[in-house]
Amino acid sequence: MQLYSFHRSTASFRVRIALNLKGIPFETISVNLTSVPGEHETDVYRQLNPQGLLPTLVDGKVAVHQSIAICEYLEHVQPEPALLPGHPADRARVRGLAAALASDIHPLHSIRVSRHLARAFGASDTQRGAWVRHWIEEGLSGIERLLANSTQTGLFCHGDAVTLADAFLVPQVIAAQAYDVDTARFTTVAAITARCLTLPAFEAALPARQPDAVPA
Amino acid sequence: MQLYSFHRSTASFRVRIALNLKGIPFETISVNLTSVPGEHETDVYRQLNPQGLLPTLVDGKVAVHQSIAICEYLEHVQPEPALLPGHPADRARVRGLAAALASDIHPLHSIRVSRHLARAFGASDTQRGAWVRHWIEEGLSGIERLLANSTQTGLFCHGDAVTLADAFLVPQVIAAQAYDVDTARFTTVAAITARCLTLPAFEAALPARQPDAVPA
Ligand SMILES: N[C@@H](CCC(=O)N[C@@H](CS)C(=O)NCC(=O)O)C(=O)O
Ligand SMILES: N[C@@H](CCC(=O)N[C@@H](CS)C(=O)NCC(=O)O)C(=O)O
Repeated sequence: MQLYSFHRSTASFRVRIALNLKGIPFETISVNLTSVPGEHETDVYRQLNPQGLLPTLVDGKVAVHQSIAICEYLEHVQPEPALLPGHPADRARVRGLAAALASDIHPLHSIRVSRHLARAFGASDTQRGAWVRHWIEEGLSGIERLLANSTQTGLFCHGDAVTLADAFLVPQVIAAQAYDVDTARFTTVAAITARCLTLPAFEAALPARQPDAVPA
Repeated sequence: MQLYSFHRSTASFRVRIALNLKGIPFETISVNLTSVPGEHETDVYRQLNPQGLLPTLVDGKVAVHQSIAICEYLEHVQPEPALLPGHPADRARVRGLAAALASDIHPLHSIRVSRHLARAFGASDTQRGAWVRHWIEEGLSGIERLLANSTQTGLFCHGDAVTLADAFLVPQVIAAQAYDVDTARFTTVAAITARCLTLPAFEAALPARQPDAVPA
């Protein structure tokens, strides 16, 4: 399989974790989101992904878009280890956490949103930073409540085994830290993230560990 | 089942369509998002949904959050009629379209984003309207390309049978129209939407048809 990915892409990071957890070997094809124009905005990439966003997973003749759909696809083609629990209500909780992370936080701090804030409102770098932090803090507060208020939360987001919810949580926390959000105050989120990062599948998916990462 | 919903909530609209398509009877419990403070911001609602967002589906003792997770849950508990196709690659395409609609368009025009634009940048009503239209137009352009460029698109988003992708598309188009976006220029999107709206399951889920709708 090939993953069209960028080291700093939060949505690609989720898929890297899922691939690693399942032990599926993959080739990273780097798409630079930060060049102007971005490599995702080219006709070549748009032929593969008409939305022009990362990530895209290619498995033979199949191109799959959207991190959630890619992870569900991986769950079909390689069921073990399972990243979704067996019971419908448990699956719903895991998918609900993943969807909250994918739809209610990350879209508000993408590169295109940040650029548009500058265009539409003349937002300064400081204002754009504050915007990003506002949404990440509000979003992670909601996730913290979802996790801390539930007896179903265990060592990981759902019970004591890693699920897709963890694969979606950790990239959001790492992104938060890159934007200088103090994530330690989300105590349940922080504890689960720290536990995940002791696992090689998560560690190897970190932005700094990717072939296209810029040395610090 | 009970659906905590609001007539104008795009994410609730998706779930109403899925429930109707499956012929599952449900009770609507209205949560007014537009009052100040919103009913979704109360402690009572947050006990049910710690994120404080709509919709929530309650099925006996189970509360499910996030429209995608709710629809997948419905697919488990009542498999027929199936809203996801059988083959993994087809399922991935349908889920990818649904996720694109749920994560790359709608989050950018929620009530809380619109309010925050006013707070953070002093955005006027006109500027907030332009912001919403920008993201809906950009987002629907991507969806139009995904649909128009694929031989898998048929009478509906995926082939000639209704899937979850249609249940996510139609509410986004209706929301676009409410914000005065000219959706006719997205020709594939428009044709599929028109076809869906001839079906009672879609029609009965329209905002204006809900018990909490304000008479025009
Ligand atoms: N909803 C998509 C994520 C889409 C997305 O926003 N991807 C980002 C990278 S994490 C991107 O392509 N950004 C380019 C831009 O904002 O211009 C998914 O879950 O896969
Ligand atoms: N990602 C959620 C949608 C969450 C969401 O933004 N819901 C809206 C209604 S469509 C909401 O509760 N808005 C309240 C607000 O923005 O303050 C889902 O797919 O269920």
